[in-house]
Amino acid sequence: MLDFSSDYTRLAHPRLLETLTGARGAQFLPYGTDAVSDAAKAHIRTICHAPNAGVHFLLGGTQTNQLAIDVLLRSFEGVIAADTGHVSAHEAGAIEHGGHKVLTIPHQRGKLTADTVARYCETFYADGNHTHMVFPGMVYLSQPTEYGTLYSRDELHALRKVCDRFSLRLYVDGARLAYALGAKENDVSLADLAAVCDAFYIGGTKCGALFGEALVVPDPAITPQLFTVIKQHGALLAKGAALGIQFDALFQDGLYLSIGQNAVALASQIRRALTEKGYKQPLVSETNQIFIELSDTRLLSLQQQVRVSFWEKADDSHTVVRIATDWATTQQDVDALLALF
Amino acid sequence: MLDFSSDYTRLAHPRLLETLTGARGAQFLPYGTDAVSDAAKAHIRTICHAPNAGVHFLLGGTQTNQLAIDVLLRSFEGVIAADTGHVSAHEAGAIEHGGHKVLTIPHQRGKLTADTVARYCETFYADGNHTHMVFPGMVYLSQPTEYGTLYSRDELHALRKVCDRFSLRLYVDGARLAYALGAKENDVSLADLAAVCDAFYIGGTKCGALFGEALVVPDPAITPQLFTVIKQHGALLAKGAALGIQFDALFQDGLYLSIGQNAVALASQIRRALTEKGYKQPLVSETNQIFIELSDTRLLSLQQQVRVSFWEKADDSHTVVRIATDWATTQQDVDALLALF
Amino acid sequence: MLDFSSDYTRLAHPRLLETLTGARGAQFLPYGTDAVSDAAKAHIRTICHAPNAGVHFLLGGTQTNQLAIDVLLRSFEGVIAADTGHVSAHEAGAIEHGGHKVLTIPHQRGKLTADTVARYCETFYADGNHTHMVFPGMVYLSQPTEYGTLYSRDELHALRKVCDRFSLRLYVDGARLAYALGAKENDVSLADLAAVCDAFYIGGTKCGALFGEALVVPDPAITPQLFTVIKQHGALLAKGAALGIQFDALFQDGLYLSIGQNAVALASQIRRALTEKGYKQPLVSETNQIFIELSDTRLLSLQQQVRVSFWEKADDSHTVVRIATDWATTQQDVDALLALF
Amino acid sequence: MLDFSSDYTRLAHPRLLETLTGARGAQFLPYGTDAVSDAAKAHIRTICHAPNAGVHFLLGGTQTNQLAIDVLLRSFEGVIAADTGHVSAHEAGAIEHGGHKVLTIPHQRGKLTADTVARYCETFYADGNHTHMVFPGMVYLSQPTEYGTLYSRDELHALRKVCDRFSLRLYVDGARLAYALGAKENDVSLADLAAVCDAFYIGGTKCGALFGEALVVPDPAITPQLFTVIKQHGALLAKGAALGIQFDALFQDGLYLSIGQNAVALASQIRRALTEKGYKQPLVSETNQIFIELSDTRLLSLQQQVRVSFWEKADDSHTVVRIATDWATTQQDVDALLALF
Repeated sequence: MLDFSSDYTRLAHPRLLETLTGARGAQFLPYGTDAVSDAAKAHIRTICHAPNAGVHFLLGGTQTNQLAIDVLLRSFEGVIAADTGHVSAHEAGAIEHGGHKVLTIPHQRGKLTADTVARYCETFYADGNHTHMVFPGMVYLSQPTEYGTLYSRDELHALRKVCDRFSLRLYVDGARLAYALGAKENDVSLADLAAVCDAFYIGGTKCGALFGEALVVPDPAITPQLFTVIKQHGALLAKGAALGIQFDALFQDGLYLSIGQNAVALASQIRRALTEKGYKQPLVSETNQIFIELSDTRLLSLQQQVRVSFWEKADDSHTVVRIATDWATTQQDVDALLALF
Repeated sequence: MLDFSSDYTRLAHPRLLETLTGARGAQFLPYGTDAVSDAAKAHIRTICHAPNAGVHFLLGGTQTNQLAIDVLLRSFEGVIAADTGHVSAHEAGAIEHGGHKVLTIPHQRGKLTADTVARYCETFYADGNHTHMVFPGMVYLSQPTEYGTLYSRDELHALRKVCDRFSLRLYVDGARLAYALGAKENDVSLADLAAVCDAFYIGGTKCGALFGEALVVPDPAITPQLFTVIKQHGALLAKGAALGIQFDALFQDGLYLSIGQNAVALASQIRRALTEKGYKQPLVSETNQIFIELSDTRLLSLQQQVRVSFWEKADDSHTVVRIATDWATTQQDVDALLALF
Repeated sequence: MLDFSSDYTRLAHPRLLETLTGARGAQFLPYGTDAVSDAAKAHIRTICHAPNAGVHFLLGGTQTNQLAIDVLLRSFEGVIAADTGHVSAHEAGAIEHGGHKVLTIPHQRGKLTADTVARYCETFYADGNHTHMVFPGMVYLSQPTEYGTLYSRDELHALRKVCDRFSLRLYVDGARLAYALGAKENDVSLADLAAVCDAFYIGGTKCGALFGEALVVPDPAITPQLFTVIKQHGALLAKGAALGIQFDALFQDGLYLSIGQNAVALASQIRRALTEKGYKQPLVSETNQIFIELSDTRLLSLQQQVRVSFWEKADDSHTVVRIATDWATTQQDVDALLALF
Repeated sequence: MLDFSSDYTRLAHPRLLETLTGARGAQFLPYGTDAVSDAAKAHIRTICHAPNAGVHFLLGGTQTNQLAIDVLLRSFEGVIAADTGHVSAHEAGAIEHGGHKVLTIPHQRGKLTADTVARYCETFYADGNHTHMVFPGMVYLSQPTEYGTLYSRDELHALRKVCDRFSLRLYVDGARLAYALGAKENDVSLADLAAVCDAFYIGGTKCGALFGEALVVPDPAITPQLFTVIKQHGALLAKGAALGIQFDALFQDGLYLSIGQNAVALASQIRRALTEKGYKQPLVSETNQIFIELSDTRLLSLQQQVRVSFWEKADDSHTVVRIATDWATTQQDVDALLALF
């Protein structure tokens, strides 16, 4: 059956699996201290124009968010996030498990604005009782957002300014970063992220890797002994080379970018076709996700032929569903999908 | 260069890498809810004679220990472990990070005895101030131990009795379990572990997998909502099938057992040869690890030709080193190694 | 200067200070194991019709909430609270510090309804992704609420029913419980609370004590080793008798009730008088708090003569302030206050 | 019955109870922001020659240790303590509850030496695997120690040097500090402690207060937003004035010092007398504690007439007990005690 339910249904991009298999005879130093991991990290530093950056390969998005938030916040601080942010709702309390409150604020199409953040902080510091409350300590964004939308470079710079004004760290969750980089509307490079963030991660799991995320900390002085903290969080992979090899391959020959571009191009095709066919798209994304509203009857019959994912109820008899393309989606898949509409 | 430094220097057993590569076209349900993971879990339940067991695939040893200890202990309890136990010293405080004290007690060749545990508990409850202290809540063992030694079935039953007497949970860290199962001296089967433990894990990472450990909870009623707890710990893999596929392969055609047997047989060969050559072996293991004492001068020259791992200083001019075989060690490797002595 | 800013501006009711002073020569067993503490606990059990209840004297409201939530929740659960609940906003993240998320839901005059809680839980369990989210594990109420309003016995029973339906614990924060018990509209006795709650606390600090809250757990089997947990939280007072003596005095000769009745009677007087004088009261309380809206100009001049407390901005030029009576408020104080209006 | 079991059997020094009672009519700003608390803090800063110090009144020793360790350590660090240290054994895991490991090292009569600490750190950093282990982050001492012994100024300076060498914070638990200050052998003043420590606390509970400890942080820049952290820990007293008033009284007219001197003088008298009578004193203290070994038979009969406290078993038929004097002990008490021997 066709499956457009998410961008993590397949194991990994064939080139990554081949590289892993090709290395089966080799012996590696443990815990990511091997030469391939070093090379992959060096490559990422170069692309990010961040020659001193700490680069740490971790295993998944929730783990990376939990760890980054834990090391960037002080104990009396919480993290500002959109109420739609992944850390707010869908990480089973991982952030609170680490002792921190998620301070949710309203969003626009999944995005925070510099103004909303500033207003939150102004109200906080104006409150005579604010020392009895959780201090805002960082801003959590995702690029692209959970709605598939993108921050522009200008928007990120405006957010950075607010962060500086209120001594907030800025962190970007790049679980689907390839699909941001591959979007035509995107004007934010990896180097831009490194320039503007205290930390961000380059998503592997949803962008072609078997698993793995690359946490980038442009100024590693702010995260002392991060290796040990990673171990303490149960997040250190004994065979770290398995991560290094994948990220090395993802950044060879522009693979990461091309993965993003192909998926986004196919998503745009679907989006246009569905628009032409008159389907209501309540959330318009610029990346690899398409959101359409269907009558429940229509959805039930569609589900006989393709897996899509439930997003939210639109009303009593209509549902918004998400269609996602990924690195493995082909033109044939898209044609087959569109034939159903 | 020859490398006998550990049992996790190579990525994974070729059969596992092939299976992963073979599945590159398939689409899987996420988070380990796929059919292959289900099959692998069912298989493990069968081998363990534990038809209702919860089986959960996790990513590494420290993560698994941290999680298991967290769910098995109540907040006012600590875990009894040998001072040489992995959780005591080499997990960067992962257990304390979860809020629990490690209650260390003396060991014999890496092993705890039922008597030592009983005495600890008797002393604890006899202390008039014990309600001001951390209650012993579980016993942590490793099979084989960090010294490569083995618990017998009788010893495990004796420990279980003490656990029952003092309401302790019993947990076994099986990071290297294949090498226990593959040892001639071993009389403890997976079914024995399931019968005697509240939880234990079957190690993948050090026994041929790219990564992964299978946590087995014979009576899953004691770990409600463990899926959510795993997510909360940042330990849930989006592409859970990557774990299911590996454990499915490890338990096909006796692969897991044969991995253990081969490594242990080669280790025994090395052990015998070094004994004949007169090398002092301060710790005698029954599994895949060999410990020998060398003069520092000798060690320095040896290190030009083979990687071994530092264990401890014997005296000012002598060092104990560890030699480890694994699933990938060949007779040629062993011959080449022995030629150096 | 007149001070109506809160109900904790004076040290303690004279009778409590006298009793403490009177006991200055005596020697007590430590940590609350003394005979006076035992007597006070026994008395509370009797009043609560809860002969087996665990009664634990703690030092303050945030500490008690933090501890109770910690022991009543499992690690994957959060606490449902009104977004105005003390635990939601004004405890500096104490609940998250303990690893738990506060799940805020809308309130009516500071109160939760059984319906709102039920709807929250229904939505939660209907969500296909709910195992990736924090489970609702308990309901936090305050009696009286932060708005000074009261739950009726019927409302509490309705909430209990919802709790039973969704396996939630029910906890009541009684920081100002004397002022609920002393209100004419109140129909909830201590015995009712013990019948309906898994735990609740009888507030001392805001009701005449120098400090101290009495946590009542009707079925102590649900909180094993609570003494040790209290110690672990840094919440165990060495001279526990200082708490026992105060609670003993508070429950002699109906002192606790009469403290509440006097304060509420005076508050009602103020409320009526201000209504007659035409002051807008945006929140109407039945207990010891009065909320009035003033122009900012009026407020500034008022503050020259009496301390009241800021509640919230009504609009750009108006402010809502809180006036609180307590056990020490006299008719003269009230007359002097009303003379200012 | 005579009671020499501890130094916290009586409520409080009469002068403190009188001052509290005297203030019963007054109204205070909450949370320790009142004028008396300010004055007490200013006084402590003066005595400590630490004009910028943060001074925070907390409620008990375990709470203060837990809080101080939490704010002074980074997440990957543990605290070095004597295995006899209060934080090691008798705080029910409060330190681990905060996420930190207690790194125990051997002691001499309850004291750590600069050498032992240095050796621990040297060994740690020499270990090739130390990044997989908990980093030493601070040294915890008690003055006087749990054995009643004292650090000299020279010893503290030597420890400070080691701390500087290994980037460790130095923290002193002064639960019984009055009895150190009041000892003839003592050459460490409050100003010395402020000069040498990153933080320390001046004990109230065991030195005449109803409850309360004064945490002193000579350079408050190292503990940002400590007020909020205190609230988050459930350690903020609403009626903070109750603490301020007591510490104000303790430091009026040399009360704190004289409390210590009297108790120590009486303890010395007891010690000398018991020595003359030939009692074995296995631990010799310079402060308010006396340790003697008794046959179990003798102890049983003694316990009919005086409460002393169990310290440890000496052998199968002998026990070491502790006798403690405090601010309330009189010459008559001592005479009555000695008449029993």
